[in-house]
Amino acid sequence: MRNYRALLSYSGTPFHGWQRQDGFPSVQEVLEDALEDATGEKVVVHGAGRTDTGVHALGQVASFHVATHLGDDRLRHALNAHLPREVVVRRLETCRDDFHARFDALGKRYLYIVATTRFRPALGGDQALWIPQSLDLAAMRSAAAVLLGKHDFAAFANAGSPRSSTVRTVRRLRLVARRERLALVIEADGFLYNMVRTIAGTLIDVGRGRRSAGSVGLALASGERTAAGPTAPARGLILLRVRYAEPVFRGPDTGPRGAPGAFPP
Amino acid sequence: MRNYRALLSYSGTPFHGWQRQDGFPSVQEVLEDALEDATGEKVVVHGAGRTDTGVHALGQVASFHVATHLGDDRLRHALNAHLPREVVVRRLETCRDDFHARFDALGKRYLYIVATTRFRPALGGDQALWIPQSLDLAAMRSAAAVLLGKHDFAAFANAGSPRSSTVRTVRRLRLVARRERLALVIEADGFLYNMVRTIAGTLIDVGRGRRSAGSVGLALASGERTAAGPTAPARGLILLRVRYAEPVFRGPDTGPRGAPGAFPP
Repeated sequence: MRNYRALLSYSGTPFHGWQRQDGFPSVQEVLEDALEDATGEKVVVHGAGRTDTGVHALGQVASFHVATHLGDDRLRHALNAHLPREVVVRRLETCRDDFHARFDALGKRYLYIVATTRFRPALGGDQALWIPQSLDLAAMRSAAAVLLGKHDFAAFANAGSPRSSTVRTVRRLRLVARRERLALVIEADGFLYNMVRTIAGTLIDVGRGRRSAGSVGLALASGERTAAGPTAPARGLILLRVRYAEPVFRGPDTGPRGAPGAFPP
Repeated sequence: MRNYRALLSYSGTPFHGWQRQDGFPSVQEVLEDALEDATGEKVVVHGAGRTDTGVHALGQVASFHVATHLGDDRLRHALNAHLPREVVVRRLETCRDDFHARFDALGKRYLYIVATTRFRPALGGDQALWIPQSLDLAAMRSAAAVLLGKHDFAAFANAGSPRSSTVRTVRRLRLVARRERLALVIEADGFLYNMVRTIAGTLIDVGRGRRSAGSVGLALASGERTAAGPTAPARGLILLRVRYAEPVFRGPDTGPRGAPGAFPP
């Protein structure tokens, strides 16, 4: 029995979130099924971030114990062969026995994407929130600055799993506009339930002129959820990376390229 | 009763192609339903290209007769309000009474996209064919050059609706590589059934070294479908634009921006 960690990308669109639940397809379920197909073992996979329905990932980390004679690259290849097209294992490595993708995570980085196109994006519309107007980037940046650092983020969390504390440290919060896309990159030591989406929804309201930049600091200070803005939809949200104390996925990548799916071989 | 033409974008992923068929959602059906919702009239919509299941469009043209008191921009706005997120009417204008989106089309331009990334694209994987290797662009271009001009393309057509002739004129065939994407742009006065996908599949086989560039001209000359390559999957294909003798969608765009969908107003 060895312990593995995997670096994953997936589309959240076809899944009811990360976490396994009866009767609804989840990312955890398809990973556990692929592991069983590849190794014959029933395995529990732990994800660093339990992403909600519709939330995507380009750098999710998962860990699991499994007994297999396959080498790391072989196992990755076998998993990718058994996974649906919307999930891919980018890296896979054996790790110390007590590594846990979620409990050992020291921070996460998320990306929130807004499409400010005139028409709703018919293609790729599940990977951005559509706001058909240009946003006031300067006002959004001024509001965002208030959220940087260590604060009680109770105002920016929806009711979810119980937490011992609502204090989190936001280490980075950048807003980048390019053509008709606006990207919000946020990194923190941890996030409360729906915290990224509530911050995104509040800053977007500032960008649309629906609330003042100054109101965001007041909302933060109040600790009242009703003082902050709406929860932005899941579809614009992407888990970019997870940070650990130890270096992860740094080894040389010697694995074979995966085989393409549906195209005739 | 006025005659209208509309410029449409849509994702082909949720639809069983353009054409209405009982029990399967189609682009034609959602457009006709939206027209009935907006005007109360039962209307038949004619599309310039009857795209297959999974094929996308950024510049499809459709025409239809409908009696309504709504102005062009109002009607467009009402249609977009009733259409699903994956379909959008970009432009809509009243046109001469005998304009027909399909019969009047003088040419079409398609785009075929290949992702040559190391890992399969988990996000946006329904908008490109994944080939996990770099392709020999020079060989593909040399093969493509043979297809330019007026030829009998019988070797590049699958069995479909009967045609009086299999001669078509390819006016443009360009291959563009950028980062890990390869795009094939092809324009012709008309396309036989699956012609773009068969040309794409054949050229991709050349790019992978599975067949020689010279074999493509031989396949064309043979007129035998078995001499050409495989039909590339629908998901990489996008209908870009339709050409008519008259200028279309050139008027000033005075319509209101559409309202966004799911985000709390």
